[in-house]
Amino acid sequence: MSAIAALKADLDGLKIEDNQQIVKQKSRDFFWYSPVLKKQLEDVTGDLIVTPKTEDEIIRVLKACFTADIPVTTRGAGTGNYGQAMPLSGGVVLNMAEMTAVKEVKTGSVVVEAGAIMSDIDKTAREQSGQELRMHPSTYRTATIGGFIAGGSGGVGSINWGGLRDLGNVIRLRVITMEADPQILEMTGDDLQKVMHAYGTNGIITEIEMPLTASYDWVDVLVGFDDFMDAVRFSDALANQDGLLTKNIAPVAAPVPHDYFLRHQKFIRKDQSVAVLMVAPFAMAAFEAFVARQPSGEVLYRSDKASDEDVRRLPPAYELSWNHTTLRGLRVDPEITYLQVLYPFPNQVELVGKMQELFGDEVPGHLEYVRFDGDITCFGLPIVRYTSEERLNEIIRLHEDNGCPIFNPHRYTLEEGGMKQTDAVQLAFKQEADPKGLLNPGKMIAWENPDYDYDSGQVFLFPGLQRG
Amino acid sequence: MSAIAALKADLDGLKIEDNQQIVKQKSRDFFWYSPVLKKQLEDVTGDLIVTPKTEDEIIRVLKACFTADIPVTTRGAGTGNYGQAMPLSGGVVLNMAEMTAVKEVKTGSVVVEAGAIMSDIDKTAREQSGQELRMHPSTYRTATIGGFIAGGSGGVGSINWGGLRDLGNVIRLRVITMEADPQILEMTGDDLQKVMHAYGTNGIITEIEMPLTASYDWVDVLVGFDDFMDAVRFSDALANQDGLLTKNIAPVAAPVPHDYFLRHQKFIRKDQSVAVLMVAPFAMAAFEAFVARQPSGEVLYRSDKASDEDVRRLPPAYELSWNHTTLRGLRVDPEITYLQVLYPFPNQVELVGKMQELFGDEVPGHLEYVRFDGDITCFGLPIVRYTSEERLNEIIRLHEDNGCPIFNPHRYTLEEGGMKQTDAVQLAFKQEADPKGLLNPGKMIAWENPDYDYDSGQVFLFPGLQRG
Repeated sequence: MSAIAALKADLDGLKIEDNQQIVKQKSRDFFWYSPVLKKQLEDVTGDLIVTPKTEDEIIRVLKACFTADIPVTTRGAGTGNYGQAMPLSGGVVLNMAEMTAVKEVKTGSVVVEAGAIMSDIDKTAREQSGQELRMHPSTYRTATIGGFIAGGSGGVGSINWGGLRDLGNVIRLRVITMEADPQILEMTGDDLQKVMHAYGTNGIITEIEMPLTASYDWVDVLVGFDDFMDAVRFSDALANQDGLLTKNIAPVAAPVPHDYFLRHQKFIRKDQSVAVLMVAPFAMAAFEAFVARQPSGEVLYRSDKASDEDVRRLPPAYELSWNHTTLRGLRVDPEITYLQVLYPFPNQVELVGKMQELFGDEVPGHLEYVRFDGDITCFGLPIVRYTSEERLNEIIRLHEDNGCPIFNPHRYTLEEGGMKQTDAVQLAFKQEADPKGLLNPGKMIAWENPDYDYDSGQVFLFPGLQRG
Repeated sequence: MSAIAALKADLDGLKIEDNQQIVKQKSRDFFWYSPVLKKQLEDVTGDLIVTPKTEDEIIRVLKACFTADIPVTTRGAGTGNYGQAMPLSGGVVLNMAEMTAVKEVKTGSVVVEAGAIMSDIDKTAREQSGQELRMHPSTYRTATIGGFIAGGSGGVGSINWGGLRDLGNVIRLRVITMEADPQILEMTGDDLQKVMHAYGTNGIITEIEMPLTASYDWVDVLVGFDDFMDAVRFSDALANQDGLLTKNIAPVAAPVPHDYFLRHQKFIRKDQSVAVLMVAPFAMAAFEAFVARQPSGEVLYRSDKASDEDVRRLPPAYELSWNHTTLRGLRVDPEITYLQVLYPFPNQVELVGKMQELFGDEVPGHLEYVRFDGDITCFGLPIVRYTSEERLNEIIRLHEDNGCPIFNPHRYTLEEGGMKQTDAVQLAFKQEADPKGLLNPGKMIAWENPDYDYDSGQVFLFPGLQRG
């Protein structure tokens, strides 16, 4: 009997899927955003999908896999773009989709199971208390909170609250270790850094306490500009309005809004750049006064004045922003891809202008305004009209040479997509919590190859990927 | 019959007070914070106090006073420090103390009458909806919302929302003009600038819609430091934590906390500088992690861990901050006064250090962190150990020469306390709304003397003040 067959017998009574087509489907995320990852990860698949309903069931899975040396890769909804949830060494995909309880809504926070969908959490929090999560990705209606914490960095709402990494944006995590006798740990404060944005490589997050903020019926607004840089300056000024409450501010360069926002197309000229906004309903009079003060900008659409049919028909503004901008582009033009750029404060507008001049329509601009260490600045998620991996790397290099750091979305490892150096805290915790290295193998270079040279100019290739 | 006696007869049925002692008492505000204003305004008094209960009664008062050319000075609780509500030409003091209705609590906003006390508004908003006002002065438990808008600039909560002047921090004002037939105007957006911070010189604010935010049981925290500049750097770092929700951050230099915060004295050494904080209850674990990351700072007191007796006995943290710091000082040492300083971003910490070196214990530091045009910086309300008006003016000049603008709290005019130039919008609106110049005479230099030279080095002296 194979190890996997033995494991399956061992886990009798749990919800298990081993149909190879379904397993492969559930072993994938949105890695195909990247033509580079698409090539590397196309054949990745697990052996079994196990869908636990309780912590006890998770512990059963971990114990059995620890004994049998079988890898375990945890998965939320699979909406990440970096192969975060893809089992490079096969084994068990631990699917959190059925641990979705919203356990307690308090004033200022909510306690949930890791598999809860973010919009479902907000629905419950809103109904019970008029509150909502501080931030969410554009995949709000499909992504799990656990996946967001294990691999996300921020999103809609980060203009008010900064990123997930900032103290206070996650309150508590309950984490199970991968040992002969799995431990259940409760983490708060600085301990949270051990497992946040670690792709599930050093523990299974089962329960989460997140801060809540006041919930509003956000008004979706599109503002049109003849010139992208006017959209940027408008967005920058709006982001710096301390009293004018917004939830997202995303300027997008022409022709992306017209060409890719298909359901909004009737509002947008092909040569129009657009600022995609979410504004608090009670701030609309102030917003109108703000628009009147600006040198340019024409309100093309606002959901509070739209017809019932438009409101029903149109996707919400957050599904035009963050990674959904790219997703809409990919549906129209599968050849495109994107980058993730930081334009450091206080030179963000100037740097965006410089990149715009350098690349023109090869890299149409898409910015997301955020708070970052107390300052207002913007990330970029520009569309890239992809021609070759060489040119993509050259575009990355030109950004970095000009003082715009890239968080490379074309890499599946934590380090290469992030800080390009060992995260000593995460590594130390993996040594404790996953001594056999069975959790999501291949994603933490510091574990796989402690001597790896990040300046080699090479891409890390996990040996597990060579097994096919 | 004198004009005042005739007016009294005219206003028969309204609540009127003409006992000269009570009238004088109700003609004063906290002008005595300033030794300069104390001397100038000591003898100021109105002739009658009229306390309207409705807009119709206000209109009756305005019509009668317009006809008889009698000045009208509107008053809230009289907690301003600049003679804002003091009737320099006598006449009617329009006391808003009985127009206190909280008319409607909505999601994100509240509609109130102008005489409502700010803590009363919050009590109702909290009970009905779990919301509270975005910001309030330290006189939260006594000040009216109308007085705050007519003369305030920000306060507790400005670390999150900026100042009252910022778009979105006031939603709507209902204003009555001083004409033969008073008009009722509704103002939103940029129109609000016409009457905000105009000391009631160009209209009577009767109803106000203010934005609300989520309400929490804020935790009062005192953190002690051996060196004031350590308290400043700690506060600066805390203010720049995007995910760690606070409502006030105020570093205060030794020996002010020990010597003036009498009921907290047992927690504070004489040589200890203190950061006075309000932190969201669900952020306390993150706050502890933040403190552990800082090079110095010892938590001296936190209300969530305090004894019941301490919680009952101690004033709330906001009554140690903003103008209450000075007020507590004045109770101990009537010789002190204070200044209002802006330390412009991004050099706030350096500028504070420079002023600290320049003046030492003659001007003990007291900062209040705020958002200001999108940046985090601080205002100063330093204590001044007052010796003479000449030295006070020299201290002001030295601040301004070093790039720290002063908003002079020792002047009773709008211009000299603020931007030292004509506010064309306020002046133009006064020309429409108060053609006879009967509203709060003497406070708007632009009206009294259009040719006034702000660079003359002289102090504006309103002729009305010479009548005594």
